[in-house]
Amino acid sequence: MDQRNTPNLDQLRIDGERLWASLMELAQIGATPKGGVCRLTLTDLDKQGRDLMIGWARAAGMSVTIDKIGNVFMRRPGSNDSLPPIVLGSHIDTQPTGGKFDGNFGVLAGLEVVRTLNDFGIETEAPIEVASWTNEEGSRFVPVMMGSGVFAKAFTLEHAYAAKDVEGKTVNGELTRIGYVGEQEPGDHPIGAYFEAHIEQGPLLEDHDKTIGVVTGVLGIRWYDCVVTGMEAHAGPTPMALRKDALQVAARLMQEVVACAHRHPPHGRGTVGVVQVHPNSRNVIPGSVKFSIDLRNATDAQCDAMDADIRGVAERLSQETGLPIRIDQVSAYPAQGFHPDCIDAVARAAEKLGYSNMPVVSGAGHDAVYMARLAPSGMIFIPCKDGISHNEMEDAKPADIEAGCNVLLHAMLERVGVVRSVQK
Amino acid sequence: MDQRNTPNLDQLRIDGERLWASLMELAQIGATPKGGVCRLTLTDLDKQGRDLMIGWARAAGMSVTIDKIGNVFMRRPGSNDSLPPIVLGSHIDTQPTGGKFDGNFGVLAGLEVVRTLNDFGIETEAPIEVASWTNEEGSRFVPVMMGSGVFAKAFTLEHAYAAKDVEGKTVNGELTRIGYVGEQEPGDHPIGAYFEAHIEQGPLLEDHDKTIGVVTGVLGIRWYDCVVTGMEAHAGPTPMALRKDALQVAARLMQEVVACAHRHPPHGRGTVGVVQVHPNSRNVIPGSVKFSIDLRNATDAQCDAMDADIRGVAERLSQETGLPIRIDQVSAYPAQGFHPDCIDAVARAAEKLGYSNMPVVSGAGHDAVYMARLAPSGMIFIPCKDGISHNEMEDAKPADIEAGCNVLLHAMLERVGVVRSVQK
Repeated sequence: MDQRNTPNLDQLRIDGERLWASLMELAQIGATPKGGVCRLTLTDLDKQGRDLMIGWARAAGMSVTIDKIGNVFMRRPGSNDSLPPIVLGSHIDTQPTGGKFDGNFGVLAGLEVVRTLNDFGIETEAPIEVASWTNEEGSRFVPVMMGSGVFAKAFTLEHAYAAKDVEGKTVNGELTRIGYVGEQEPGDHPIGAYFEAHIEQGPLLEDHDKTIGVVTGVLGIRWYDCVVTGMEAHAGPTPMALRKDALQVAARLMQEVVACAHRHPPHGRGTVGVVQVHPNSRNVIPGSVKFSIDLRNATDAQCDAMDADIRGVAERLSQETGLPIRIDQVSAYPAQGFHPDCIDAVARAAEKLGYSNMPVVSGAGHDAVYMARLAPSGMIFIPCKDGISHNEMEDAKPADIEAGCNVLLHAMLERVGVVRSVQK
Repeated sequence: MDQRNTPNLDQLRIDGERLWASLMELAQIGATPKGGVCRLTLTDLDKQGRDLMIGWARAAGMSVTIDKIGNVFMRRPGSNDSLPPIVLGSHIDTQPTGGKFDGNFGVLAGLEVVRTLNDFGIETEAPIEVASWTNEEGSRFVPVMMGSGVFAKAFTLEHAYAAKDVEGKTVNGELTRIGYVGEQEPGDHPIGAYFEAHIEQGPLLEDHDKTIGVVTGVLGIRWYDCVVTGMEAHAGPTPMALRKDALQVAARLMQEVVACAHRHPPHGRGTVGVVQVHPNSRNVIPGSVKFSIDLRNATDAQCDAMDADIRGVAERLSQETGLPIRIDQVSAYPAQGFHPDCIDAVARAAEKLGYSNMPVVSGAGHDAVYMARLAPSGMIFIPCKDGISHNEMEDAKPADIEAGCNVLLHAMLERVGVVRSVQK
């Protein structure tokens, strides 16, 4: 047992070294030579990671429930155990070339919060649960955010079970194989509020030299495939005036994707990430170019406006050049604002603890997006080095990890109701 | 024997139907279901094609010499056989999805010229040779224009022999296997003048509704690889202002390649044919983009000017954006003007025969480029449908085929010296 004193709750702090040590120990499972982690969902390594995590939870006196999609709920009872739990969570699966912090931080920060409460003998009115959601990354099985998505009934358990990896193995089969099909129906599990701590996965906090990002919501996303059709011809014999160069028209539209984002500030984002040129030969004028468009903004209305904007630009460009341009939406994720109470709780915690902070929106999806459909939810971001994640180079400072976990603790304390603090 | 009368040489015409029939017969060897031809150099099919061609030449009374790189010279003696021959030629190898006319037309038009002279008993002072050059296409073995290149000592026989296809088979091995390694040293073969008839492989003649292109020269070519280096980052969490999007900078430079061509008229050409985006993922801002640049112009000085132009633009773009841009030249082919006498001979022949015609430059390389280093040379272009070649859809009109061959005949007659016309 920890020997620290807690004269009052405001001075309560988590144990940064213990949290860091747990993060490093979990990162051993699937560790890559470059310092990253490859622990794909529902692999043997995922099972080892889950087993380690659950072992820690049981050692912290928590009970464990698993649902049919393999989501793990590690519970510290409350004095009024019939209250819906305050849930702290994230995921421990990683990208193929993932890092130590993405997801893992949110789960182990939740565990560290419980350990800290234990250290100081603090009893809460509502129970606290640490949730570890199955397959957030979506790199082995789609859709992404699978466990939280099934839990929030964004799609069915059957749909998730049927998903196959590149070898044809199913989610159901792999979940059964590693022994993580639980009894509970996904979603049959009340949630009082949800907090998720996460590395930012972007450069904004580092750029503004802030420790804590108070996440106000998650951007809506629209994904499109765009095809510009020209006329394949030889680069030599075809004079400039007689060309129908699909790439030249595509290059203009690619720039318009970025211009469109700038026309919808402050949160508009536009990215062309994939380009396929046909026939992709050095001395052949491209006959067609297919490329991806990723548009994001803070509200669905702004996403709609960007959609109309880029379609209008493409239409005018097609008329001007005579080359057909086709834009097909391939998927869409609605924007999700977090609950004002949770946003405020995070902001107050950061201020109280003296951490520099700023409001941010999350450009990437998180399990918290689905939880926000079910209960008041909020997120806490901490900086990651150079904004890099989904990469073995992903890195975060121990001091920021500690700060993020302290904010998680204090934001949670606002909601959970402290019954009794027994100094040990 | 043909029964036509030839009151004078100006009224001499080739037999268009016979030429067409030969083209169609040769096109059977390697015929593809879509109406094209796949007769890659030094394959069994190439051997069959060569055998058929040589059989026709012998039937026309010609003698055959083969050199060590497999170039075939089919000779009709002159009254003064010590004069260097007037050579009419091209190639009969094709692209993997090639057409019936590219190359084949130039060789069989030469053969048809000889057949026509035979029909009318016309004896020439200089000998006439029809040359069939090995591996012009370069699709199985590089370099392209291999036979004529070795002949013109642009590179060595050993270099050509060592070239390997994707299976690791060498030119030397394959040439030996099909029995086409001749005795003669390549280049040990005088040439008085060289004429090559060819489909245009571009849209200009069709666009201008002209039957004959009087080719004044072949554009110089500069090939480059260009790499723009940015910073890979997530499309969601990275605000527009903090991006180093390699594709956006590359897209601007791609457009500058075309703008550069327009800044160097009338023959400047600029093409980006190959694009590789890294990591090429829908929700990742591209970290680097590699693309090809193909610049062409009518003189080496103009090619130099385009080289300086695009490098200057890239330098300024790099300074403006802060992203490194690297441009490496990967190969260069000098511009080659044809001999004024040969150009004039082709133009006069077209005029005399009443064919609409216009001066054109060839944007693509041909064996005539290497021959022009050795002897006065010229080329005759005829339209091909929609400017398409290197494609099974490649097509040309029988009337244009006939016209091109008639121009070849009369341009050649200017140079060869007619000794005697014996009506048969």
